[in-house]
Amino acid sequence: MSIQDQVHTAREAAYKLAVATEKRRNEILIAMGGLLSQEREAVLEANARDAETARKADLAGPLYKRLVLSDRKVETMIESLRSVVALPDPIGGQEAKRELDGGLLLTRVRVPIGVIGVIFESRPDALVQIASLGIKSGNAVILKGGSEAKETNRVLHALFARAIVEAAPELAGALQLVETREDIKAVLALDDEIDLMIPRGSNELVRFIQQNTRIPVLGHADGICHLYVDSGADEVMAGALAKDSKTQYPAVCNAIETLLVHESVSSMLPSIVATMPEVEIRGCERTRTVVDCLPADEDDWSTEYNDLVLSVKIVDSLEDAIAHINRYGSHHTDAIVTHSSEAADQFLRRVDSSSVLWNASTRFADGFRYGLGAEVGISTGKIHARGPVGLEGLTTTQYRVVGAGHLVADYAEGRRSFTHRELG
Amino acid sequence: MSIQDQVHTAREAAYKLAVATEKRRNEILIAMGGLLSQEREAVLEANARDAETARKADLAGPLYKRLVLSDRKVETMIESLRSVVALPDPIGGQEAKRELDGGLLLTRVRVPIGVIGVIFESRPDALVQIASLGIKSGNAVILKGGSEAKETNRVLHALFARAIVEAAPELAGALQLVETREDIKAVLALDDEIDLMIPRGSNELVRFIQQNTRIPVLGHADGICHLYVDSGADEVMAGALAKDSKTQYPAVCNAIETLLVHESVSSMLPSIVATMPEVEIRGCERTRTVVDCLPADEDDWSTEYNDLVLSVKIVDSLEDAIAHINRYGSHHTDAIVTHSSEAADQFLRRVDSSSVLWNASTRFADGFRYGLGAEVGISTGKIHARGPVGLEGLTTTQYRVVGAGHLVADYAEGRRSFTHRELG
Repeated sequence: MSIQDQVHTAREAAYKLAVATEKRRNEILIAMGGLLSQEREAVLEANARDAETARKADLAGPLYKRLVLSDRKVETMIESLRSVVALPDPIGGQEAKRELDGGLLLTRVRVPIGVIGVIFESRPDALVQIASLGIKSGNAVILKGGSEAKETNRVLHALFARAIVEAAPELAGALQLVETREDIKAVLALDDEIDLMIPRGSNELVRFIQQNTRIPVLGHADGICHLYVDSGADEVMAGALAKDSKTQYPAVCNAIETLLVHESVSSMLPSIVATMPEVEIRGCERTRTVVDCLPADEDDWSTEYNDLVLSVKIVDSLEDAIAHINRYGSHHTDAIVTHSSEAADQFLRRVDSSSVLWNASTRFADGFRYGLGAEVGISTGKIHARGPVGLEGLTTTQYRVVGAGHLVADYAEGRRSFTHRELG
Repeated sequence: MSIQDQVHTAREAAYKLAVATEKRRNEILIAMGGLLSQEREAVLEANARDAETARKADLAGPLYKRLVLSDRKVETMIESLRSVVALPDPIGGQEAKRELDGGLLLTRVRVPIGVIGVIFESRPDALVQIASLGIKSGNAVILKGGSEAKETNRVLHALFARAIVEAAPELAGALQLVETREDIKAVLALDDEIDLMIPRGSNELVRFIQQNTRIPVLGHADGICHLYVDSGADEVMAGALAKDSKTQYPAVCNAIETLLVHESVSSMLPSIVATMPEVEIRGCERTRTVVDCLPADEDDWSTEYNDLVLSVKIVDSLEDAIAHINRYGSHHTDAIVTHSSEAADQFLRRVDSSSVLWNASTRFADGFRYGLGAEVGISTGKIHARGPVGLEGLTTTQYRVVGAGHLVADYAEGRRSFTHRELG
């Protein structure tokens, strides 16, 4: 089947999935979990073949680690399918109900988006997560995994396609797998059929998708996050938050890359950096007068290290800290440490980022920690969804009007007028 | 000033506007109305110069009509500024409030998007509307009007820029005017500085913007809307709704282009088309056996006439009507006439359009009629905002977290756990 036919099949399935009941969608998810449990050996065997190929090709350590499945990881996949079943239904809810006039009723209803394309790298559990969130929210999904997990992804996709056919045969085709780079190019060109692209992976992947399609893209390329230590901050808290924000998991997007410190508390810097001796510090000139470290250059302020490296800058004011973050940051997640509620208020309102925190680690910026139930991704865009995105990010709305033969001419010509009464 | 400098100035002003109080934003709007009232002669004089140029250039009738201002139209502009002052504040509202753990509080707050680019054609009142909605929602706006209204737009922009300086000097630069086609190209390239483009005008304009920028675009190119007359529909209601949906204002996007009729009620067709003798009918083969009309060809089903022309097709089933609309329509606005609540339910849920109506005219699909207070545009995209878009469409959200030194490591290592308690 050509990519065009695959995507068209998904689109047709999406129309049916959009009106499937929550029960039916959950039955598919339960069937997916059942088949995955039953066929776990087949999944592990396929994964072993991928791992073997990866070993021969000397795949980089972290990628290899993400690729390889274990009994425990498959069990976690099955658990995650169950947890998606338990999530509240993201579609069908009425968001607004308004009487426009007697007998003329407007509602705004949550509906699925339609067809979503997801491109992910190496980890096969991403396929499970995205396929399940897609079905839960009534969307068809075009899946493209990393070539290094090709065999695993094929088996997982075949199992889930079988689960759909067994649980809801009319929805066959709602999950489509595409495999090659050429396929991706074809997918990115189908902006009439695909409603949203979600790239999950490296900055390079996200940027490539953003720059090569007219389909809206949900996600973020960079995570250049900051912690700002304000004048009068608590020294112990500042050290603990800096350490947690930098080192608790340095490879992820919501870890900080730059520490900003108000000049009045620059004397705290030695004790702050002492909390994380494993971190390479790159400081501005003033920082280097109080801490023994490498010099930071202009590029450091806009670099996402994703590693145990931290740039440090002493600033003259809260104003300067906010200006630095808005200029060099990626509008992702930034935090302030301060005792002043006035300074915190300024920071939270004026830093133009999807998440802003006061006296808390930047690492909290995450769908699960925020209590969204599931995370589709973190968006630094300001359109549609911003920050950690839950299932709601896979939905849109539709206006529905019910009348009794109402005509606009009657209102335009003054024979009737609108009541616009909010209901329920 | 270069376009880059203009947009950068707007971006800087946007940061300040984002934290301006509602009172301050309303004061600007009041100053805008005051200056417009005071300087209405200057506006009318500039408009007379534009009209003179347009006459010499033989500008098409409808464009000329939209361009020319009168005392009455200026008065309407002033009234519209007052009505925007009276609208509820679209920003600052808390949408979600959740305790993540003791002392760790998450809120999601409505904030302005930032910098919005608006491109509109001929009618100078669009400048007033968009500038005021932008200021109300805390956004800086880059304005590009039609070249035929150049003089009028210059005077209006100068007045509003002066109003900002007088009412809130720190926000100077929040409204920028650009004038040439080259300027537009430069604007469309600034996807790092501009957050949203709103083209208001012809299908060609919208399509040009969509195809020439990476900035998200809010709007719709086509309005190919349908009315479907189901089996067992009331003949009089069907005729009245068809006439209203087609003729009440045929040049707008929510007027219908195609009438679909269930074969069991095709005998109603003569009386339905008799309600609108001024309309040219183009019928499918079966239609032509009951109505004397021109033949419709395949292209007619996907043509937006924006005129007194209507294509008519007899379909075998509700199923076929829905399939026709999803295939040939533009996902804008579609309506069903029926007595069957079951058929209506199927139609409303399965037609993939931003507005769907049952026994009501498609012409109701409009921000004012829907009671949104103001209309930014009608979006057929599924991302961000769909259907008639009010002031909420000019806002986004920001997550704000307040803690007391909370660290993620404590949760990752099992020393603490999340409460995720919904508040307020």
